[in-house]
Amino acid sequence: MSDPKKGRILLAMTGSNPRPWYELLSQSREVVTEPASPDDPSITYAVVWKQPRNLLAKLPNLKAIFSVGAGVDHILVDPTLPDVPIVRVVSENLTQHMVDYVLWRVLDHHRQGMLYRAQQKRKVWHEPPQRPANDISVGIMGLGELGRAAARALLVAGFRVNGWSRSERSVPDVATFHGDQGLTPFLNATDILVVLLPLTEQTTGIVDYRLLKQLRKRNGLGGAVLINAGRGKLQKDADIARALDDGTLKEASLDVFEIEPLPKTSPLWTHPRVFVTPHSAATSDPSHLVGPMLEQMEAFERGEPLANLVDRKAGY
Amino acid sequence: MSDPKKGRILLAMTGSNPRPWYELLSQSREVVTEPASPDDPSITYAVVWKQPRNLLAKLPNLKAIFSVGAGVDHILVDPTLPDVPIVRVVSENLTQHMVDYVLWRVLDHHRQGMLYRAQQKRKVWHEPPQRPANDISVGIMGLGELGRAAARALLVAGFRVNGWSRSERSVPDVATFHGDQGLTPFLNATDILVVLLPLTEQTTGIVDYRLLKQLRKRNGLGGAVLINAGRGKLQKDADIARALDDGTLKEASLDVFEIEPLPKTSPLWTHPRVFVTPHSAATSDPSHLVGPMLEQMEAFERGEPLANLVDRKAGY
Repeated sequence: MSDPKKGRILLAMTGSNPRPWYELLSQSREVVTEPASPDDPSITYAVVWKQPRNLLAKLPNLKAIFSVGAGVDHILVDPTLPDVPIVRVVSENLTQHMVDYVLWRVLDHHRQGMLYRAQQKRKVWHEPPQRPANDISVGIMGLGELGRAAARALLVAGFRVNGWSRSERSVPDVATFHGDQGLTPFLNATDILVVLLPLTEQTTGIVDYRLLKQLRKRNGLGGAVLINAGRGKLQKDADIARALDDGTLKEASLDVFEIEPLPKTSPLWTHPRVFVTPHSAATSDPSHLVGPMLEQMEAFERGEPLANLVDRKAGY
Repeated sequence: MSDPKKGRILLAMTGSNPRPWYELLSQSREVVTEPASPDDPSITYAVVWKQPRNLLAKLPNLKAIFSVGAGVDHILVDPTLPDVPIVRVVSENLTQHMVDYVLWRVLDHHRQGMLYRAQQKRKVWHEPPQRPANDISVGIMGLGELGRAAARALLVAGFRVNGWSRSERSVPDVATFHGDQGLTPFLNATDILVVLLPLTEQTTGIVDYRLLKQLRKRNGLGGAVLINAGRGKLQKDADIARALDDGTLKEASLDVFEIEPLPKTSPLWTHPRVFVTPHSAATSDPSHLVGPMLEQMEAFERGEPLANLVDRKAGY
């Protein structure tokens, strides 16, 4: 039962179904989907996905904003955002989904799934050369919670792992690079690029033709591979198509796109060396995420600090 | 350079290319591909893949037989086989290839690769429900070197793992079952079945319709999944096709078949829910395997015991 003494939640989600979130949150707190007025004093927390602009600007007692997704670009894009702490979602469930997506896609490219599926269609019984995993370097752009977990899983699966982040990070057994000056050496040492960056002003459009051109194209691999499970606006769709067509890229797995849903007219839908998923690499599952969110609110009301806070200046 | 004082090797391979093996072995020992006579006294070791019957029967100084593959059914099938130790191949490289094949196939079924590829063809942007890995039980039949390594990788990737073997085996964090009486409870608790058994009289044809019928078919998974990376004769191809068609099985990944190459007439080639690879899950790579083989011979000649010996009575 919701407790009227506890801080009230404003649930503001657009482009995603709020119903399961509403049901789970309202089991222990009062939840509204609209404030009574722009300066409704009863709202303590906002739980949001792409909240409408201006919605949060004037709430006088808003204490914290909770993102229902791992990224927070959908929150920060609002220029009227009030200056309260923003809490990102961190959950084992979300991390597990992302890690198994990354491992799945890396293995499918590494083990030549596209080639074998094409062969099967023609009933061709042929074994192509196969490199061992420890001969392949996977490079992860973005070494946050998800990037580090993906790196650990890839290492256990036997791959070599490089990592790149904007500011310096150290990850066990991962060759790390950082900043603008670290980008070229990172790309030059990477066979399979996995993009898990946050979307910020600095990272918008970072995965362009020039970047892809710097990936390693080793003999026997037949070109580099791109996997983007971060945000669509990190990449330039047209540059990826160009890189695939001129052999800069061998294959790509794309879970995100500049425009989503991916328009039917996009050449990426039908490209034989592109694997498309509908932004489903790691979907936020309210049944796993609402519990930790409510616990954070409880802890905060007991005077404890909020965890997993967003650095608004860095943008993630 | 080959050293004439060292034991001479008979390299006997059929149905597989002996050339790279010959080149690598002959760098340190004398290698022949045929004995001078059926009782050639100069042969100390045989390195074999499906050796011709009778070839080894009368060699008076044969000390050991080395298999170039992880399975040894291709050796034991010869009723004239002399009573000398048989050494199976165990190498990190072979194990790694098998582990990444198993992880790849489990993840592709778990993450619904077949569904997504079918959707992409129709430009459908739709996210199906996705269970977390820790909600899925992968059952491994065969807990030898490869089965145990696959179990470890699947556990790290977050899956639950069951294991079945003919005789009792204990594997950390794996729910193990054994013998005839353990088979039904093992199958009843398994969503994705991975077959890595040795081929023996007892295991021939074990993967039949009756066995597949006992796999767990949980709500939301839409039927069980079969992955066979062991030997083709462990399975009944026709039973698998039947199980797929009546919904007992949702999907299958088959690397091995009753007859190889898989005949063009097999319905498995074109079944939309079967993924076919040409017995390439874990191919023996001479550049990784010859070194350890030669080291075993050296150690044996210094008086040390041979490792990774086959139990001829058990058949593996």
